[in-house]
Amino acid sequence: HPAMAQSQVTVYGILDSGLVYTNNSNAAGDSVVKVPGLTGSVPSRLGFRGAEDLGGGLQAVFVLESGVNVDTGTMGQGNRLFGRQAYVGLKSAYGTLTLGRQINMTFLAAVKSDVMGPNLFSMSSIDLYIPNARSDNAIGYLGAFNDFTVGATYSLGRDASAAGGPAATGCAGEVAGDAKACRQVTGLLGYDNKAWGVTASYDILYGNTGAAAGLTTSGSSDKRVTLNGYTMLGATKIGLGLMDRKKVAATRANDLESDMYYVGASHPLSPALTLDGQVARHDVKGSANDSTLTVVRLTYNLSKRTAVYSSLGHMRNGGLAAIALDAGGTVGAGLNQSGVSAGVRHAF
Amino acid sequence: HPAMAQSQVTVYGILDSGLVYTNNSNAAGDSVVKVPGLTGSVPSRLGFRGAEDLGGGLQAVFVLESGVNVDTGTMGQGNRLFGRQAYVGLKSAYGTLTLGRQINMTFLAAVKSDVMGPNLFSMSSIDLYIPNARSDNAIGYLGAFNDFTVGATYSLGRDASAAGGPAATGCAGEVAGDAKACRQVTGLLGYDNKAWGVTASYDILYGNTGAAAGLTTSGSSDKRVTLNGYTMLGATKIGLGLMDRKKVAATRANDLESDMYYVGASHPLSPALTLDGQVARHDVKGSANDSTLTVVRLTYNLSKRTAVYSSLGHMRNGGLAAIALDAGGTVGAGLNQSGVSAGVRHAF
Amino acid sequence: HPAMAQSQVTVYGILDSGLVYTNNSNAAGDSVVKVPGLTGSVPSRLGFRGAEDLGGGLQAVFVLESGVNVDTGTMGQGNRLFGRQAYVGLKSAYGTLTLGRQINMTFLAAVKSDVMGPNLFSMSSIDLYIPNARSDNAIGYLGAFNDFTVGATYSLGRDASAAGGPAATGCAGEVAGDAKACRQVTGLLGYDNKAWGVTASYDILYGNTGAAAGLTTSGSSDKRVTLNGYTMLGATKIGLGLMDRKKVAATRANDLESDMYYVGASHPLSPALTLDGQVARHDVKGSANDSTLTVVRLTYNLSKRTAVYSSLGHMRNGGLAAIALDAGGTVGAGLNQSGVSAGVRHAF
Repeated sequence: HPAMAQSQVTVYGILDSGLVYTNNSNAAGDSVVKVPGLTGSVPSRLGFRGAEDLGGGLQAVFVLESGVNVDTGTMGQGNRLFGRQAYVGLKSAYGTLTLGRQINMTFLAAVKSDVMGPNLFSMSSIDLYIPNARSDNAIGYLGAFNDFTVGATYSLGRDASAAGGPAATGCAGEVAGDAKACRQVTGLLGYDNKAWGVTASYDILYGNTGAAAGLTTSGSSDKRVTLNGYTMLGATKIGLGLMDRKKVAATRANDLESDMYYVGASHPLSPALTLDGQVARHDVKGSANDSTLTVVRLTYNLSKRTAVYSSLGHMRNGGLAAIALDAGGTVGAGLNQSGVSAGVRHAF
Repeated sequence: HPAMAQSQVTVYGILDSGLVYTNNSNAAGDSVVKVPGLTGSVPSRLGFRGAEDLGGGLQAVFVLESGVNVDTGTMGQGNRLFGRQAYVGLKSAYGTLTLGRQINMTFLAAVKSDVMGPNLFSMSSIDLYIPNARSDNAIGYLGAFNDFTVGATYSLGRDASAAGGPAATGCAGEVAGDAKACRQVTGLLGYDNKAWGVTASYDILYGNTGAAAGLTTSGSSDKRVTLNGYTMLGATKIGLGLMDRKKVAATRANDLESDMYYVGASHPLSPALTLDGQVARHDVKGSANDSTLTVVRLTYNLSKRTAVYSSLGHMRNGGLAAIALDAGGTVGAGLNQSGVSAGVRHAF
Repeated sequence: HPAMAQSQVTVYGILDSGLVYTNNSNAAGDSVVKVPGLTGSVPSRLGFRGAEDLGGGLQAVFVLESGVNVDTGTMGQGNRLFGRQAYVGLKSAYGTLTLGRQINMTFLAAVKSDVMGPNLFSMSSIDLYIPNARSDNAIGYLGAFNDFTVGATYSLGRDASAAGGPAATGCAGEVAGDAKACRQVTGLLGYDNKAWGVTASYDILYGNTGAAAGLTTSGSSDKRVTLNGYTMLGATKIGLGLMDRKKVAATRANDLESDMYYVGASHPLSPALTLDGQVARHDVKGSANDSTLTVVRLTYNLSKRTAVYSSLGHMRNGGLAAIALDAGGTVGAGLNQSGVSAGVRHAF
């Protein structure tokens, strides 16, 4: 019976698209106008999810979620059909155990404190791993106990796609005789009450032959530790955090040690209108290639599911830093970049 | 609540498949039998769409539509997940504004006058751009005012897929410092009443390094202007039109100037049975490589959603013209081609 | 009206994932731990299907079914969007006629007798064609008359994907002037009553330039004939069968002649708990490279739709046979392999 079958799956999604202008988009200082691909105010997606009550407080749960590049109709995450999430699991009062491709703890740790989220102009532009913090071949756990949250993922092969880009770094792992190759461990510990919260995370991923970013041996690794917090001042949220990163690549030239700090606020001007702002600072150790992002965003909610928004942003690139203001964008090395974006977001 | 969430998305589609026989399918004059890939009587698809009432006559709208090659289970449009349409927008009494990958005005202009539509044998075989008239990275507008329709698209990068074929011509655009590269503008103006209608369209697209069909500079362009009309004689529709095309490629050898004329009729033999016929003439300027298509189709509607059909077609290729009768097919250069197809179409 | 439209499509699927350990996974005898990709207890999928009553006992039917690799979120079957099934057809009391990509008779013939089905450890590991017995560009027929079942597929081009692997063998066919290239014919005849059943199948597929497994001419072929049967001993099913295979490749070095025999049982220990076991023997003619699979599986049904399971398996590889215990796995040539898997399966 179709009607009954339907009730076991929810089809959901978000479509978010718009326009973006940035200056200094190449070495000659030329500007560009685009329909952004990776994200607008949030990345676009289409998903299928469900939950079945198994009795005794136990549930079966699943999610299949496609990343959609609305500008071209293509799949995101290295041509994966369900690149955002693909998992099945069991949920109880003791937490949720999941198996498959899943969002890991580095992304979850910042969700409540990073008021801009994966906005086109955001700290994700500084480290594109943040909105792409997912692990293939992973066992995941997430539990909430009173005001505490604890979570972890363990991946046997963190990224099987070699299509290129931050979500397709070519490390399939699951190699006989090498217990490190392409493994990844992430962990999270958080505390939240109505007034404030704090979340810490740990993330280490290993390389192997063919992996991107110089992680071409199973001994090479990339480690991120974050601390994130927020507090409510009335209806206004103040959120801040830091991420400490240390990459030990196969050759020393590809090593990297950096800190990123961010502080922001989300302030409701009216029931329909929200003003968000954030500053993020990227400090590359032993280098002048540091960058500072400043962004403000105004969102007008047409309904609970639909909004229009506009962002103004600036990236200051010191030394020869070449971090683009917009996620997936380009900037001339050592050039500052300003930009403006506007778009519409619809959830269903 | 799943049931509520479901009501925000409509899953819809059309599956259309069958068999096709054509003679003279290679230079040796051999025939071939196939399950067609690109289309039967219409191209197959699976889509997700929705609309939300925002009050005051305003709506949020979205479409995500996959092109499906039923013969092999693959995606169409250059391996795009949602290659037919992927957009989000706002709709009001003043028209609909959309952002994303969308059908452009060259396709829409002929919809009411071209009685065969994207049939396997149709004028689409002469110019495969017609059923693939879509633009990536586009802003679209379509409005209807009394009996008038006006529409336009503006694309900042018309075709980001380089997979090959008419829907994947490798022109991603959005290049800093080049305001022409891979841009595309299309426009439409139409008038319709119950007895007749006429629609004109304009379409110019630009190239860039790596683009297909010799459009390898941003100065090179391909322009199509169409005029289409129809009239009702009782229940019988007579539709006709012309398309004027001028391609200025990077090198003169790839230039092309051509006209296409078509005239057809759609006649209901009974409530369930429809007979369609069309003749289309392709005139390549300064060349004997002209072609003439003749096609008749009989459709038997088993219900409003399901039909079986058969088409008989002939392509006359003058000079060394090598335009296949069937969309995506092959023919020996300068050979005429006859064919027959039959299939079943189901909409859901 | 969305609600009405929804009732015309059923969204359904199965997600099945877990962990697998195998020893001797390479020539050095190293072991490996993985999240399996191709299957757990059954392959994961997401599908869209529907049926419309056309009156007089006639129905229109369709299926679009994606194979999903839950471990990485990717598509299966050589990057096909709907690689498991993509067809439209008409169904009546005389049987169902279908057009498109479809499961062929070699898979269907063993469904009732092979108690392990496409389990990660199963006879599918010996011949990965069995769970991938599908044909592109096919006309299919399946009819049931009293206790008899008869079916056939005829493919004009059996496998259009050249991505590699058992579901992407690079034989698109539909070649003008070659009535054999990449064609495939499969047939089935079965009888079932409440106590026992028997099904036989025939399958011959042809090659062409570029096809995998040495079938690089349209004269080369791979033929499989199967005989399968089962009987119920109370609630316990005993199933057994044999597959005779003969491959005539383009060069004699790629020829293959083999038999596979299997026998198994499925026994309900309790309403919730099922024990399955199977032995399969692969006998390569004129060679010592024979293999024997032994597998037992315990399934605990948490509901009708959700289960957890664990399998224990062993593959004995004689000579230089290198058949891995797990589907898509690896084993050192001539090494035996033991393994254990566990996972969760959820249908929706």
